[in-house]
This record gives sequence, C-alpha cells and structure tokens, in this order.
Amino acid sequence: MSVPATALEPGATIGILGSGQLGRMLALAAAQLGFKCHIFAPDRDSPAFDVVRETTRAAYGDEQALADFAENVDVVTYEFENIPAETAAFLAPRVPVLPDPKVLATTQDRVAEKDFITGLGIGTAPYAALATSAELSAALDRIGRPAVLKTRRFGYDGKGQAAIAKDTAAETAWQEVGAQPSILEAFVRFDREVSVVAARSADGTVECFDLTENEHHDHILKVSRVPAAVSDSTAREALRIAETIAHRFDYVGVLAVEMFVLRDGTLLVNEIAPRVHNSGHWTLDGASVSQFEQHIRAVAGWPLAKPIRKGRVEMINLIGHEVEGYRKWLTVPGAAVHLYGKAAIRPGRKMGHVTRVFAD
Amino acid sequence: MSVPATALEPGATIGILGSGQLGRMLALAAAQLGFKCHIFAPDRDSPAFDVVRETTRAAYGDEQALADFAENVDVVTYEFENIPAETAAFLAPRVPVLPDPKVLATTQDRVAEKDFITGLGIGTAPYAALATSAELSAALDRIGRPAVLKTRRFGYDGKGQAAIAKDTAAETAWQEVGAQPSILEAFVRFDREVSVVAARSADGTVECFDLTENEHHDHILKVSRVPAAVSDSTAREALRIAETIAHRFDYVGVLAVEMFVLRDGTLLVNEIAPRVHNSGHWTLDGASVSQFEQHIRAVAGWPLAKPIRKGRVEMINLIGHEVEGYRKWLTVPGAAVHLYGKAAIRPGRKMGHVTRVFAD
Repeated sequence: MSVPATALEPGATIGILGSGQLGRMLALAAAQLGFKCHIFAPDRDSPAFDVVRETTRAAYGDEQALADFAENVDVVTYEFENIPAETAAFLAPRVPVLPDPKVLATTQDRVAEKDFITGLGIGTAPYAALATSAELSAALDRIGRPAVLKTRRFGYDGKGQAAIAKDTAAETAWQEVGAQPSILEAFVRFDREVSVVAARSADGTVECFDLTENEHHDHILKVSRVPAAVSDSTAREALRIAETIAHRFDYVGVLAVEMFVLRDGTLLVNEIAPRVHNSGHWTLDGASVSQFEQHIRAVAGWPLAKPIRKGRVEMINLIGHEVEGYRKWLTVPGAAVHLYGKAAIRPGRKMGHVTRVFAD
Repeated sequence: MSVPATALEPGATIGILGSGQLGRMLALAAAQLGFKCHIFAPDRDSPAFDVVRETTRAAYGDEQALADFAENVDVVTYEFENIPAETAAFLAPRVPVLPDPKVLATTQDRVAEKDFITGLGIGTAPYAALATSAELSAALDRIGRPAVLKTRRFGYDGKGQAAIAKDTAAETAWQEVGAQPSILEAFVRFDREVSVVAARSADGTVECFDLTENEHHDHILKVSRVPAAVSDSTAREALRIAETIAHRFDYVGVLAVEMFVLRDGTLLVNEIAPRVHNSGHWTLDGASVSQFEQHIRAVAGWPLAKPIRKGRVEMINLIGHEVEGYRKWLTVPGAAVHLYGKAAIRPGRKMGHVTRVFAD
C-alpha cells in the first residue's frame, strides 16, 4: 500500500522511521494538527523520542518490532533517506508507507538518482559510474579534473566523498571512499547553491516554497537565505524542475532538490532528498505553513496549504559547539531559536538553528 | 523556592501541572527550546500526554507522586489556576514553582482577586462578597439590578454563575450557584471585552502582547481580534494595568487580564488568569514569539523576547461539534489550524482553534 484509502482523521497515529531533529519537528507539526506520532528508531536516546507518547526502540531489521509498529500506526513515513529498503519492503504490505519506498531505491543510489534526473531532461554535472580503480581512471579521462568521487550509497554532509584535484592520485581518492562502487562527478564552477522544498499531495497538487539559497561550510549547511538572489526566470525554472521530479516520482510528502546555479543562470541538479530538509527549516517561522506541516498533511491525505512567505528570511544552523552561543539569539528582535534537545555536542553535529524574519 | 537559582540549560525538564490543551501547547513550545516536559495530572487520557515523554497520572493530593515528580523536574509550572493550594504548597519547598503559588490564593477567590485589583487603584465593576441568602438580598439593594452572582471559587467558562435580572428572585439565583460563598457583581454595560496577555521574567522585565478584543458566545471565548478597535490611549492604559498587576504579584510567567471597555474608554478589570490564556492563542501564528514560548522562557529563567505582531490577526475557537468543520479551514490562505487531540467531542468543549493573519 502506498496511499491511505481515505484521509486520516485527527487522533490518528503517524508512524515515523527515524528519531533525529527532522522526526522531532515532524512530530511537533503533527501534534498541531491533532495527530499522535509513534517513533521507530534503533537509537537509545534521540531528539524525537522526547515529544511523542509512543516509541519503539528497535533495529530497522527487527521484523517483530516492525510488525507491531505497523499494527499500531495508520501510516508510516520517514525522516531520512537511508532507511534500509528491506524495512520499507517489510512494512509496505502491512500499512501505507509514504512517500512510496520505490523513491528510496532511486535516491539511495547516486547513480540511479542522476540517471533518473537526466532521464527527465534536467541537467546535472557530468558524471560516470564506476566500480573499480581502473574504471575510476577511465572516468577521470572522460570527465576531467577537478572532480569529486562519491560512494554510490549512504553519503551525507560530505561523508563518503573525496575531492580529486589536478595532482590527486586516482588510487588515493579510490581508497579514501573505501574502494567501493562510486560515482565520479565533474567539479562544477557554480555561482550559488539553491534548493527547492516542495510538497506533493496524493491528488497530484504540488506546492513549492520559495527558492532558497544555501551556504555550506565543510559540506554542512550553514546558512539559508530566502529569496535566493537569482532572476525570476531562474527561480521559476528551479521550481519547475522540483515539480517535474515530484510528479515523476508520483511523490507524496515533502522533498528537497538541491541545485547549482551557474554564472549564466543554468541550473544543475546536485541531489534529491526524499524528505523534509534542513534548507526548509526557515519555513517554521518564515512561512504561513512549515515544510513539516506540509509533509504531515500530505501523508495524512489532507490538502496542502498554499505557503505565504512572511518576509526576507535567514536560517542559521547551530553546529557543534556553536549551540553554546544560543543565548545571544534569545534577545535578537524577530529571531526564533530552535534547539533539538541533543545531549552530546559533537563537531559537525546539527544542534539547533535560528531563524530571522525581516520585513520584505 | 519560587525562582530557580540560575537559568535552566537546554535539556532540563519542566514539570507542568495539568494536561489540557494549554499544557500541550506549553510542552510544544518547550520542545522548540530544547527542554523536556513532564506532565502531572489526574486524567487518564488528555491532550498534553501525547507530546511528552514523561507523565505522572495521579491525583493532585497524591503526596508520594508529587514528591517523585518534584525529584524529576527542574521547575514546576501550571496550565490552569484551579490547582489545589495544598498541591502547590507541598511542591514549593522541594522544587521551584512558578508563578509563585501565592498568586493562586488571590486568583482562586473572586473576592480576594477583586480586592487586590481595587487595592491597586484599578477599576472593576461594583461588587460585594456574601455568604448567605440574606447577605445576597442586602448586596442586591446596594449593587442594584441587573447583576451577576458568581461563586467565589472554581468558576470558569460561565460555570457557577447566575444572571439576576429585574424580576429574578434572589433565592433562585442563590440556589443556582449552589448556595455557597459568592460575589455579586453589577452588570456592566460595556462596549467591548479586551484582554492583555503579558509575560514577566524573574528580573522584572514585562513584555505585553498587543491588546486583544474578545467575543464570547455562551460565556465561552469565540473569536479574538488583534489589534482591538480602541484608541491608542485606551490600549496603552490596558497594557499599563496588566503590567502593574504583574509587578505587584512579583509574577514570573504569562498572565492574562480580561477587561471591559466602557463607552467612554474607561477600563474595568473583569478577571485575572495566572496562566497562558485562550485570548493569547493568536500569538502562535501572529507574533514573532508565542505566549507559550514566553511562559517557558520566564519559568526557565531565560530572557523574554520582544513580541512583533505579524499583521492583523483573528483567532476563532472550534468549540464542540464545530471542530468537525476543520477541513474547510485547511485550504484558506494564511489560516493555521490547531487541533488539540481530544478524543471526545462535548458541547462547549474547546477542541481546537484557527488563526488567520492578514497583512496590516
């Protein structure tokens, strides 16, 4: 089953796979709409557990726990894209799982994802799939340098990536990513990084949030700004791309499409996140509806809201020890502080964020 | 203890007495700031239980349960004013309780409350305390008709009240309120009902939300509108009154002051609610900080935010079966739907609310 037969009633229970800050913010949005949430995750202690009544702490491969979970929820969704395909496959015959797990098969594999995107006539950086060190050398001859080598699967926030400069030995990069099936991508000289966060409901309606400009530090999102400083036609084209992808996936829920904007306005898709996304956190304070509420509406079979932006918005991630400076934001006029309730501070760990809304 | 020695750190646990929608929305606001919540209430099943990890379901007089609760939280606050005084008195030596329970002694007794207000030089409707049917007759001679008879304690949403018209027999009204210590209030011919929702932090800072105009149906709040349609000087005076009350209580947290506005702009205080208040629900969507977040900030020893209103705002309560019409609001542009997760619909029960924000 991929779509609930009818819209859920308030009081229904939404099952969420994953217990990080995205699950936490999904659960808070679900609560506003009168839903209960049940979090399923292997973690012992994690942000989403604190804001729901029902939790299952079990491995994603624990079939008894999954069967019980399916019995006790009305729909299942997920907060991150690395849910094992087997988990989704086990659940899908028992309870509606949204977005459809087949999306994961595409987005969990960088090559399948890029093939899917280019198959829609949408641009990406030149890329090549490879499975051996020799194939890497051949791919480098074709793609050229500089380039980036990435594992096909399970990479995020720069993990599983190796930059290949003019003089980097191919073998070094190959070992750096763990000598496993990978994708080589041409290094693209871009002006800006942008993303579209889009929601699609089961009836095929798509609502996009305004194009967001993103600044990364050490491969981790640091700042998002809305609206992105691009021409109207580029912004419209970016939204059209996200909409095309959402339709082609027959997607239900929120997804994010990250893109590069080249000097001449050309858009290249970098990657698709089949879930709510860090670059959409600004919507909690800067729009009339948040990405989290849109996702819950979609998976509940409810109509989407038409997002109205409340001004110029800036979202700043609090990463690692930066969170210790949260107090200075508490008294900044118009700033909203969000802390994820993570006990341990680790370098690179997303601990919270701050949104600032300015009159347009 | 009434004030925490130092500001709480994120990850601390806030104990909340009461498990209704106010407790639920307080817990959601606390989660945004990285706090955990522990709900203590006698109810078996109630809105706030669904959004927290720790709950104690026990009677307010259960000293063992209260002692355990005090052990496991860093501060205690409450979502409604009818917490038994003994409960607060039992907790206060064990854990900081905010706002200070002494406020309850005043606001739980309509006569003590009115005496407190008039003692500050702030106007109220003429009133008289009475404890017998004979005293009621004497009070009626003094106050005149029409008038309203209210029990001194435990009234809300029009419960424990009897209207006394020109020809109502005093004895009938006396029996209607249960023949118990009461207050007789002159019926005031007012133009509007307004309220101020104000937050005060332990350091004495007060931040008021903009004056709100309220429309009641059957003694239950139906619609709030902000800003209230009164002169600037009346609005300023209303905020000054709330600020005076907050200071005189040495209050920490959010309180609401309900007032009548007479034809000539005179303000008379109707009642004080020592808690977040239904007429402040618009702040969830219509202000840069909500009343719930301000309350959590105050009881956590954090600085208050300066509220910035986002436009003209209207809040509509969904009462009883009205909640069944929630779907029509889901697609109204700029409308935010809030459902409280209550399983049973009963006449007069607050089931949810809708906020609409319009550009000023």
